[in-house]
Amino acid sequence: MKLLQCYIDNIITTALMEDINYIDAAADNLIPEDHRSSAYYVAKDSGVVCGIEVAKRVFDLAGGDVDFRILIKDGTKVQKGDIIAELEGSTLTLLKGERTALNLLQHMSGIATATNRCVELVKGTNASVTDTRKTLPGLRALQKYSVTVGGGKNHRFNLSDCAMLKDNHIDAYGGITPAVNALREKLGHTVKIEVETRTLEEVAEAKAIGADIIMLDNMTCETMAEAVKLVDGAALLEASGNVTDANIRQIAETGVDIISLGALTHSVKCFDISMKIKK
Amino acid sequence: MKLLQCYIDNIITTALMEDINYIDAAADNLIPEDHRSSAYYVAKDSGVVCGIEVAKRVFDLAGGDVDFRILIKDGTKVQKGDIIAELEGSTLTLLKGERTALNLLQHMSGIATATNRCVELVKGTNASVTDTRKTLPGLRALQKYSVTVGGGKNHRFNLSDCAMLKDNHIDAYGGITPAVNALREKLGHTVKIEVETRTLEEVAEAKAIGADIIMLDNMTCETMAEAVKLVDGAALLEASGNVTDANIRQIAETGVDIISLGALTHSVKCFDISMKIKK
Amino acid sequence: MKLLQCYIDNIITTALMEDINYIDAAADNLIPEDHRSSAYYVAKDSGVVCGIEVAKRVFDLAGGDVDFRILIKDGTKVQKGDIIAELEGSTLTLLKGERTALNLLQHMSGIATATNRCVELVKGTNASVTDTRKTLPGLRALQKYSVTVGGGKNHRFNLSDCAMLKDNHIDAYGGITPAVNALREKLGHTVKIEVETRTLEEVAEAKAIGADIIMLDNMTCETMAEAVKLVDGAALLEASGNVTDANIRQIAETGVDIISLGALTHSVKCFDISMKIKK
Amino acid sequence: MKLLQCYIDNIITTALMEDINYIDAAADNLIPEDHRSSAYYVAKDSGVVCGIEVAKRVFDLAGGDVDFRILIKDGTKVQKGDIIAELEGSTLTLLKGERTALNLLQHMSGIATATNRCVELVKGTNASVTDTRKTLPGLRALQKYSVTVGGGKNHRFNLSDCAMLKDNHIDAYGGITPAVNALREKLGHTVKIEVETRTLEEVAEAKAIGADIIMLDNMTCETMAEAVKLVDGAALLEASGNVTDANIRQIAETGVDIISLGALTHSVKCFDISMKIKK
Amino acid sequence: MKLLQCYIDNIITTALMEDINYIDAAADNLIPEDHRSSAYYVAKDSGVVCGIEVAKRVFDLAGGDVDFRILIKDGTKVQKGDIIAELEGSTLTLLKGERTALNLLQHMSGIATATNRCVELVKGTNASVTDTRKTLPGLRALQKYSVTVGGGKNHRFNLSDCAMLKDNHIDAYGGITPAVNALREKLGHTVKIEVETRTLEEVAEAKAIGADIIMLDNMTCETMAEAVKLVDGAALLEASGNVTDANIRQIAETGVDIISLGALTHSVKCFDISMKIKK
Amino acid sequence: MKLLQCYIDNIITTALMEDINYIDAAADNLIPEDHRSSAYYVAKDSGVVCGIEVAKRVFDLAGGDVDFRILIKDGTKVQKGDIIAELEGSTLTLLKGERTALNLLQHMSGIATATNRCVELVKGTNASVTDTRKTLPGLRALQKYSVTVGGGKNHRFNLSDCAMLKDNHIDAYGGITPAVNALREKLGHTVKIEVETRTLEEVAEAKAIGADIIMLDNMTCETMAEAVKLVDGAALLEASGNVTDANIRQIAETGVDIISLGALTHSVKCFDISMKIKK
Repeated sequence: MKLLQCYIDNIITTALMEDINYIDAAADNLIPEDHRSSAYYVAKDSGVVCGIEVAKRVFDLAGGDVDFRILIKDGTKVQKGDIIAELEGSTLTLLKGERTALNLLQHMSGIATATNRCVELVKGTNASVTDTRKTLPGLRALQKYSVTVGGGKNHRFNLSDCAMLKDNHIDAYGGITPAVNALREKLGHTVKIEVETRTLEEVAEAKAIGADIIMLDNMTCETMAEAVKLVDGAALLEASGNVTDANIRQIAETGVDIISLGALTHSVKCFDISMKIKK
Repeated sequence: MKLLQCYIDNIITTALMEDINYIDAAADNLIPEDHRSSAYYVAKDSGVVCGIEVAKRVFDLAGGDVDFRILIKDGTKVQKGDIIAELEGSTLTLLKGERTALNLLQHMSGIATATNRCVELVKGTNASVTDTRKTLPGLRALQKYSVTVGGGKNHRFNLSDCAMLKDNHIDAYGGITPAVNALREKLGHTVKIEVETRTLEEVAEAKAIGADIIMLDNMTCETMAEAVKLVDGAALLEASGNVTDANIRQIAETGVDIISLGALTHSVKCFDISMKIKK
Repeated sequence: MKLLQCYIDNIITTALMEDINYIDAAADNLIPEDHRSSAYYVAKDSGVVCGIEVAKRVFDLAGGDVDFRILIKDGTKVQKGDIIAELEGSTLTLLKGERTALNLLQHMSGIATATNRCVELVKGTNASVTDTRKTLPGLRALQKYSVTVGGGKNHRFNLSDCAMLKDNHIDAYGGITPAVNALREKLGHTVKIEVETRTLEEVAEAKAIGADIIMLDNMTCETMAEAVKLVDGAALLEASGNVTDANIRQIAETGVDIISLGALTHSVKCFDISMKIKK
Repeated sequence: MKLLQCYIDNIITTALMEDINYIDAAADNLIPEDHRSSAYYVAKDSGVVCGIEVAKRVFDLAGGDVDFRILIKDGTKVQKGDIIAELEGSTLTLLKGERTALNLLQHMSGIATATNRCVELVKGTNASVTDTRKTLPGLRALQKYSVTVGGGKNHRFNLSDCAMLKDNHIDAYGGITPAVNALREKLGHTVKIEVETRTLEEVAEAKAIGADIIMLDNMTCETMAEAVKLVDGAALLEASGNVTDANIRQIAETGVDIISLGALTHSVKCFDISMKIKK
Repeated sequence: MKLLQCYIDNIITTALMEDINYIDAAADNLIPEDHRSSAYYVAKDSGVVCGIEVAKRVFDLAGGDVDFRILIKDGTKVQKGDIIAELEGSTLTLLKGERTALNLLQHMSGIATATNRCVELVKGTNASVTDTRKTLPGLRALQKYSVTVGGGKNHRFNLSDCAMLKDNHIDAYGGITPAVNALREKLGHTVKIEVETRTLEEVAEAKAIGADIIMLDNMTCETMAEAVKLVDGAALLEASGNVTDANIRQIAETGVDIISLGALTHSVKCFDISMKIKK
Repeated sequence: MKLLQCYIDNIITTALMEDINYIDAAADNLIPEDHRSSAYYVAKDSGVVCGIEVAKRVFDLAGGDVDFRILIKDGTKVQKGDIIAELEGSTLTLLKGERTALNLLQHMSGIATATNRCVELVKGTNASVTDTRKTLPGLRALQKYSVTVGGGKNHRFNLSDCAMLKDNHIDAYGGITPAVNALREKLGHTVKIEVETRTLEEVAEAKAIGADIIMLDNMTCETMAEAVKLVDGAALLEASGNVTDANIRQIAETGVDIISLGALTHSVKCFDISMKIKK
C-alpha cells in the first residue's frame, strides 16, 4: 500500500517551511556546505516502525544530498536499540531535515504500535480493530495508513464514502426504518449504510431493514453478545465507545466484527526513535 | 493572543475538505436544507478549554448558518459536565462541521490541559514549562498557542529564531568556545544562542563564552542543581530530557529556569468534549 | 445537497484568475466604478438548470456588489425563454463575472440535462442512471453533483471508496474467488466490492463469492437478462459500456440495477443560457 | 509549442488527489509493489491525438516507475486500432494513473479532433478556426493548446489581452466611435481592439474608427459577405454565433478571416482511447 | 480599474503570514484584545498615492476590526504632511497589519510617483510612458496597476499576449520578413507583432512587412527621429533602453509613440508614508 | 547558507506562470523544440552577484533542458563585463526562462550590492549593517538572504522572533519599565526584547530594566554617542532612521552596534546583468 507522493510531499513541504522558515540559524551559519556526516536511526523502545519512506523523503526535499538506507521497513516490530536506517550525506541537510523526519516517523510509528497492541489483544477472535474520523487536520491519510501498518483496518475515510445514520438523522425521519428507506432512494449503490444503535430493539430494526453495518454504541458486553446472536451474520456489527486495553479482549469475545477506537489517532503517544550523528 | 485568521482558516478548510470531500452521504441525503437544531458542547472530563474560537470558526466555513455562543473561553478550567458552548442553526451545517470542530477543540484542549498539569506541579518554583519543535506538520502554531493557554511558555518557533548549538555543531568547531565565536560573527543581533551541554565542564564553558541559554541535556537533578549554582544567573538554564509528571517538581526545585517537554505536543491525549444535539 | 463553499470558491477563484488575469481591458478602461446595470439569465433551450448557486457566488467573488436573485433553482426543468435569474448591480462586476458564471452554469446544466434525459428514458424500470470516474480535473464534485441534480445517482467518488476488481486484479490472483478473498482480508468493512465480469460464468462466480456489485461489461441485452435471472437479487448488477440514448431503455428492461455512463461527464454538451444586460 | 510543466503538474496533481484520495482500494490491497505489467494505448476511433505528453507525465507523478513510450505525437491523425503508446512498469502505478491519464488524453484529443474537422471543412478559404473563452475552470491553457494541435488558432486568452467592445460598453459611451476613442486613451499599445457588430452600419463605423478586429455577431452569410466587401481588408473580420459543421464552409466562403466556435471547448466529445494491460 | 480581490487577498495573506508567522511577540503579549486606538497615514514626501484600497484590505485580513477611512484615493498627488487615511479600531490589528500595509502602499506609491514624474516630463509630446516585464515575482499586476495610476500605460502583461521578435528569433529565420511571415501563420488574430530593431534598415524592413509595433532598441535620438520619419505612422514606435529622467524629454520629442522603462518596476524607490498612532 | 528549495521553487513557479501564462507567443510559434543555443550572463556594472543558484533553478523549472554553468558564485564582486554564467541548451527554454531569471538575479544582486556598499562604508567600526521588515510580499527570505550575501546581518525575520517595544506598547503600560516587566511574564525565553527610544532618559530606563537591544530612533550622532557611553555595553545599540550613504560612517563612529536600513530592501536599485545569446 502506497500513499500518493504528491500528498506526502505536500505534508513534508509544509513541515519543512514551518520548521525552518528562513534558515537554520546554527547550522547555516556554522556548517560548511560540503561537510558530510553519517547518522543512524535507533529505536528507543519496542514497537512497530511506520513512516520510514516518509522520513527518507524528507531529506530529498530538505536538500536532496543524503543517502538514506532503510534497514527496517514499515510494519516491522523493533526492540529498543534496533537500527532502523542509516544516513550519509550533507551535514546541513541532515540537520535541517532531522526534526521534520522524526516528527513524522515517531507519530506514524506511535499509531502503528498502539494499533498493533490492540490487534494482538483480540487475536483469535472474529474482531478487526479499526480507526475513526477522529484524526488531525491534513494528516488523515498518513494516520489511517499507519493504522493498517499496525495490523488494523480502516473505517470510512470521509463522510462521503459510507452513510452513518445517527440519532438525529433517525429522529428526523421518525425511526430507523423510514430513515434507511429514504436514504436508499438517494444514495449511490456503492455506499454502505451503517446504523448507530443503543438498544437491542434498534439492533433488531436495523437488521430487519437490511443495514449493512450496525454500530453498537457504548453497550455492555452482555448486550453486545445478545446483539451478535440476534443479528446472526445478517449485518456487520461494530463495537464503539470506551474501548480500552483492559476491555478490548472481552469486547472482541462477544463476537462483534469490528471494534473502532478513536484513541488510535486522536491520542497518539509517539514512538521514540532517535537520530544519532556519528562523530 | 490571537492567531492569524488566514492561518486558522487554512487549517479548517483542509480539515473540512478531508472530512467531507464531496458530501455527507447521510446528512446531505436526509436532512432538509432548512432544518434547524440546537446543540451544546459538554466537557466529559476536567481540564482546560482551548480552541473554542477555532471550533466556532469551523461552522462559519462549513456553512455560515450556525449561531455559536461561547460560554467558556480559552484558558478556563472546566469540570465534567460543564457546558462550553451552545449552538443553534442549520442541522446540515452542525453535522458537517461537528467532527472537524471537535477534532481541533479536543486536540488543543488536550495540550492546554497537559501543560496546565505541569505548570501546577512546578508552581512556586522558578521554572517555566515550555514546548519544543516536536509538533505535527502544519499545526505548530495551533499547538504552541495551546501550550500558552495552558500556562506554559513557548520555546523557539523554528530553526531561524534561536541558534541552538548541539554536539555536532560543537564538534565541527573543536569546542563550545570557538563555535559560539564563529556563530556570533554571522548571527543577527536579535537571535539568542543556546548551548546544549552534557557535563558541568561544558556548562562552565558555555557560561564563560556568554551563551544566552544553556540546555542541561538529560542530567540528574543533582548535576542540574550544581549547574544552577555554577552559572549563578549569568545565563538561562533549560532542563531537557525524560521529564515526567513524576519528576518535574524535583527538576524545578533544582532552580533551573525552563523545563521543556516534547510530550506536550508529540504525545497529546485529546481532552474529551462532546457535541450533543438537542431533540 | 450542498457542496462545500471552500471547494466551490476555489474553483471560481481559479476560473476568475484565468479569465481576467490582470484587468478586463475593455470594461476596466471604459466603465465607471459606480455604473450599475440590470441583467437576467435566459434559457436558450429546454433542459434542467444546475449550478445557479455557483453562478451567483461568482459575482460575490468577482466584486461582491451584485444582487443576484435566483428565480429557478437547481433541478428545475426550463423551456427556451424562461428567465432563470435576475441580476442588478455594478456593471464592472457583471461584465467581469459573466463568462466564468456562464461557463460553470452551462456545463453543470448540460450534465443535469443529459442525465435527466437518460433518467426519463428508463423511467418505470428498476434501473438507476449513474456516472463514472470519467470526469475533468478538479471538477469531479461539481460534475457528480450535476448528475444527481439531473436525477441520476453517483457511482464511487474515487478509488478509495469502492473496490472494483478488474481483469488484471483477477488474473493476478488466479480467479475471482481468490481475488475477492484476498481483498476481504485487507479491506475496511465500509467498502463494497464490485467485480467486473464478461461472461455468465464470471457472474456466477462473483455471485457465489458474495460480491456486493457485479458489473456486466459490454454484454448484450440477452446476456444481461440472463445475468439478472442468475443473480436473482443476491448482488447489485451494473450495466456498463456503449450505453446510448438508443439502447438505454432496452438495457434497463433487462432488469439490471444500475446503468453507468461515462458520457454524462466526459462528453458534456453545454446547456445554452445567456446573460442579457438590459439597456 | 510547449505548455509550462508546472501548469501541467498542478492539473495532474489535482486530478490524482481527486481520483485516488487515499488509496486504490483494490490495487493497493491486491497488487504486490514489485508486480510489473505491460500495456498500450489504442485508438477506438479516428481522430487527432492530443495530450500524449500530459498522459505520460501522469505516470511520473503517480509513481515514477513506468516507462511510457510515445508512438504517436500530438497532432497526428490516427485510425481505430492504432497503437498510440506503450507502457511498461509497476502495475500499481499503471492502475493508479490509468483513469487520470485517459481523462486528460481523451478530452484533449476530443478538442483537437473536433477542431481539425472544422479546419478541414474550411480548407482552401481565407478563414481560420478559433476558440473562445468558453472553457472549463483551470483547463483553459490545456484546451486552447488542444485547439492549436487540431489546426485551429487561439482567440484571446483572457480579458486583459484584447479589448472587446460589446453592446453595453458601446451604449455607455453613446456609440462605437466615442467608445473606441475613450478606450484608446487608456489601453496599452500592445492590445488590439475588437468591436462586436450586429449591422452593416456598425461594421462601417467600426472600420472608420480603425478597429483592429470586427466581430460579425450572428449575421447571415449574405450580410457577412457584404461586410467583407465593405471592410475590404481594413480590419480582420470574425464570424461568431451558431456555427455548425453544416454551415461553417458557407460562412468561410463569405471571405471572413476568423470563425470562432465556443463548442470546440464548451461541448467537447471525448475521443475514445483505451489502455489495455497485456496479460 | 480594479484588480481582482482574490489576487490581492492572496498577496496580503502571504505577506501577513510572512510578517507575523505565529504571533506579534510584543503586541500579542501586551495589548488587551479590546484595546482600541486611532491612527492616520501621513505623507512624508510629495508624490502620487497608490494602493490605498490594498492597505485598507490588509486590516480586514489581519483582524477585521479596524475602520479605515480613505481620505485620498489612488492617483491623487499629495504633499509632505497630507493625511491620506484615518484608522480607528483594535490596537492589536493596527499593529499587526501596520508593516504589511505600509510595505504595499509605499511600494505601489513609489511606482506611481516615479511613473508620474516621467509622464510629466513628456507632457505635450506624442509619447506614452510604459512599463516592461521587469517586475517582481507575484507582484506584476500590482506593479502594472501602479504604473497606470501614475499616468503611464502598460506594455504587454506576459509572453502570451504580444509577440516580440528579438534578434534570436529573427536570426533563426534568416531575417525579419520570413520571421514575421512564419509567425503570422500561427499566431492568433488578437496578438500584435512587435519587432525589435537596431538599425534604420531593420526599421524599414519591419515597416514593410507590416509589424504592428517597432521597438527602437538603444538608438540615439537622431536615429529615432529618422525612424519616425521613415515609418510615418505605419506602425507604433517604441523607444527602449537607457531612458532616464535626463533624456526622456528629448526622446519623446523625436516623435516616438511609446517610451518603455524597466526602472519603473525593477528599481522602485518606495514613497515614504508613515502610520502614526494617536496617543 | 542555503534557502529551502521548496521556498525558492514556489517563487519561481509563481514568476514563470505570471510571465508566460500560456505560451511565449513568439518563441513557441517560431523556435523548433530541438533548437539549441549558447548564452552567457554578463555584468553591466560593478557590484556583488547574488541569486545565481536561483537563476539556474529557473531554467530547470522552465524546461529542464539547459546546462547552466555558474562561473561566479553568490557574494563575489564583479566588474562591468565579467561573465557570470554560461548557458547551453534548448533555445525555447532559454527564452522562456530569461526574464524570470534576470528579474530575480538583478533584484537580489541589487540588494547585495547596496548592502555591500554600506558595509564597506562602516568598515573598521563596531557597527553591523542590518535589514528591516520593510520587504516585499513573499520575497522576505530572498531579500534577507541577499543582505547577508552583501555582508550585512539580518534583523528579526518576523514579529514572532523578537519583541520590539514601541511607543504605543510603552504608553499602554505607563512606561518602559512596567512594559518590559509585563512582557517578561509572558515571553518565551528565546526571544530578545528590544526597546525603541527617543531620548537619553528612555535609553537609561531601557538599560536599567535590562533590555537586550535598545533602538536609538532618529537621534543625532551626538546623542547616539552619549547613548553609547551611557549604556556602556550593557545592551546592544541599534541606530535607526534616515541612514544614508552620506551619514552612515558618522553614525557607525558613534559606537553603535547595529545600523538598520529599510532602503536595503524597500528601495532596491536592480543590478544590471544581461543575458546574451550567442549567434
